[in-house]
Amino acid sequence: MNTGHHEASWRLPESDPYAHVDLKHYVRLARTAELGTFDSLFLADGPQLWGNLAQRPAGALEPLTLLTALATATEHIGLIATASTSYNSPYNLARKLASLDIISGGRAGWNIVTTAGAEAARNFGLSEEPPHAERYTRAAEFLDVALKLWDSWEDDAIVADKAAGVWGDDGKIHPPRHQGTYFSVAGALNVPRTPQGYPLLAQAGSSEDGKAFAARYAEAVFTAQQTIENAQAFYADLKSRTSRTGRDPGHIKVLPGIVPVLGSTEAEARAAEQVLEDHIVYDHGVARLESLLQLPSGTLELDAQLPDDLPPESAVEGAKSRYTLVVELARRERLTVRQLIGRLGGGRGHLTFAGTPEQVADQIETWFTRGAADGFNIMPAVLPSGLDAFVEHVVPLLRARGLFRNEYGPRQTLRERYGLPRPVNQYLSPSFV
Amino acid sequence: MNTGHHEASWRLPESDPYAHVDLKHYVRLARTAELGTFDSLFLADGPQLWGNLAQRPAGALEPLTLLTALATATEHIGLIATASTSYNSPYNLARKLASLDIISGGRAGWNIVTTAGAEAARNFGLSEEPPHAERYTRAAEFLDVALKLWDSWEDDAIVADKAAGVWGDDGKIHPPRHQGTYFSVAGALNVPRTPQGYPLLAQAGSSEDGKAFAARYAEAVFTAQQTIENAQAFYADLKSRTSRTGRDPGHIKVLPGIVPVLGSTEAEARAAEQVLEDHIVYDHGVARLESLLQLPSGTLELDAQLPDDLPPESAVEGAKSRYTLVVELARRERLTVRQLIGRLGGGRGHLTFAGTPEQVADQIETWFTRGAADGFNIMPAVLPSGLDAFVEHVVPLLRARGLFRNEYGPRQTLRERYGLPRPVNQYLSPSFV
Repeated sequence: MNTGHHEASWRLPESDPYAHVDLKHYVRLARTAELGTFDSLFLADGPQLWGNLAQRPAGALEPLTLLTALATATEHIGLIATASTSYNSPYNLARKLASLDIISGGRAGWNIVTTAGAEAARNFGLSEEPPHAERYTRAAEFLDVALKLWDSWEDDAIVADKAAGVWGDDGKIHPPRHQGTYFSVAGALNVPRTPQGYPLLAQAGSSEDGKAFAARYAEAVFTAQQTIENAQAFYADLKSRTSRTGRDPGHIKVLPGIVPVLGSTEAEARAAEQVLEDHIVYDHGVARLESLLQLPSGTLELDAQLPDDLPPESAVEGAKSRYTLVVELARRERLTVRQLIGRLGGGRGHLTFAGTPEQVADQIETWFTRGAADGFNIMPAVLPSGLDAFVEHVVPLLRARGLFRNEYGPRQTLRERYGLPRPVNQYLSPSFV
Repeated sequence: MNTGHHEASWRLPESDPYAHVDLKHYVRLARTAELGTFDSLFLADGPQLWGNLAQRPAGALEPLTLLTALATATEHIGLIATASTSYNSPYNLARKLASLDIISGGRAGWNIVTTAGAEAARNFGLSEEPPHAERYTRAAEFLDVALKLWDSWEDDAIVADKAAGVWGDDGKIHPPRHQGTYFSVAGALNVPRTPQGYPLLAQAGSSEDGKAFAARYAEAVFTAQQTIENAQAFYADLKSRTSRTGRDPGHIKVLPGIVPVLGSTEAEARAAEQVLEDHIVYDHGVARLESLLQLPSGTLELDAQLPDDLPPESAVEGAKSRYTLVVELARRERLTVRQLIGRLGGGRGHLTFAGTPEQVADQIETWFTRGAADGFNIMPAVLPSGLDAFVEHVVPLLRARGLFRNEYGPRQTLRERYGLPRPVNQYLSPSFV
């Protein structure tokens, strides 16, 4: 969000460099997305100040706070906030997400992240980030605690018998009394069970640990894929992993990111893309690429290809799958560092696609009908104009082809809109003793 | 808030027993408070499920989340959220409060609490609450870290030079690099400096530790006082302590809570109060009073006075000043346990006052003009009707007497409305090397 997913978007004449801290900007985007009958708004996040201020807008409104403000400015759209299992307490986060689900009438989602990087760790009392696998072990326990807390009130725990002076039924409260490796949480939650039972669970890690976690918990998965073949393989793998955990593979929705750059002709779209590339400050791009690839500063040369001797993904801590995607992209297309930065500048690994509305609609249709995606995370290169253009020109094509809804149905929760069932309370299920 | 500050208010025919989880209820209250040109809305909080569900509405929307939703539904009113220094990380809480300050245009406030009680501790990995003094030591370090984070961006750190491709000035970012007893936080915050610099700092503990903390940090102090003499002594003590820390005593506002029960005649007001008392379930009241006084269950008898051999405040962990207030109230007025529960049922220690609008206005004027208060926390026994009545009948009297504003001035921050200066950034002050 903010001025767009292209790193240089803030430099365009149309862009407001303060947009990322302006509620009005986000309200406008959210309302446009509702005009386009989008399922949801998704905000990424990390609890640290990224990179240098010089290079691009930094600092932002905290996602749960911002989405709560947007809840009252919108009616239908889902609100998916990123929050870290490494740097939150389950009780605090479960409360806030439950509160947002109630306030929004069942539109809350949680993008579960484990948060890579030492910068974040150092804001929370650690000197280095915990190892990748440990972060995921903690995440799994975090989820177990959060799910218990969200189920700690039965749906009908509130009796409201004024005459008898009995407000609630304490027999329908189930304190988790969780004692684990990372957390000890007595409970119960101090928020009643919410419209959705609990927020839609989303996830965005595509590493081995990430996919295993998604198969077990996630209902929506954000992913960066550069080719349809890779996307199909990822899709099939995730559905199969989900089946193997005993879940319905239809209950996990795979949502690749795409960065559309629209023009009324292909040439016009390419020109718009070129304008953006011309605004990239390559020195910053080199520094960021070195950081992603965990290389010493000064390793990369702008007009050379990546070094041959990069370590394998297994040796990398942090954003593992993004590492592999970037290295594969550079190798596959024999890109120089300069060209690679140009490609990444648009979507930092998400597929940038410059073209006409028909071409973008074609690509979406192809990926959707050929088992590469259940939906898409639309990440316009420039905002708000890129979202305006998508809603005005691409959405009608998708509707005409019968691929997308014409209007929102009667008041639905986010989970209902995704075609997912409301979760059964674990304390009521037959397996609970 | 919810159905009112009287514990039995939810049983009245007019009350909605689901009000505490209904955003519309809070929007209505907030807008009524804006009609009454109130300074701010204040939400108390504890991160645990209080008491038994049977006795009264439990569970609530998390205050920061709820107030953020209200930020977009209101224009002028301040939004003061309670949050705990014992059970939050400074980085997370500083971000959320900064985000709310930006979203609300400078209307955020933080009621700083250390959170008494083992119930809360057990939701955050502890088996018992930390000792009172230790909680305050941690709170002071929490504040120091939060203040550094809020100052970590200078006001003009954003340059937004599109032509040069320079968005921000990294020289105007000051990472706290804090290494302390309880926290280690590298920083900087990932939110720019906010309209108020940082949220208005409020506090509500009246113990010795609490008053020392307030003198050092607080700009507004909520307090429960049963007599004007006690209120005057508290007021004078707090102003004097504040002076002794080197601060301007005018920059700490003392705000006793009052629980008005209005009637068009005094008899009508008393009758309304009696209806509320008739709805109290005394068994629950006894259990709660035993818990507050830290007595074994079954100690108290409804129609006897409190035991003579209660321990002194210094021996009590938890809500120290509330303990003393309750014991003194019972002794001073020779109340039976039943009478004491009736008195506390209205405001749990805050002064309940049943009378005509003129009588309530007189009381407010007396306390205000005689050095007992800089303002008041109005806590109607029944909501929303009690707030409606206060705004309709008492506010006009206060305005006519020149004690209260007739309308909001031009767009002001909460701190401006309290007559407080915007904080100077500590990294720019002459004492910062």
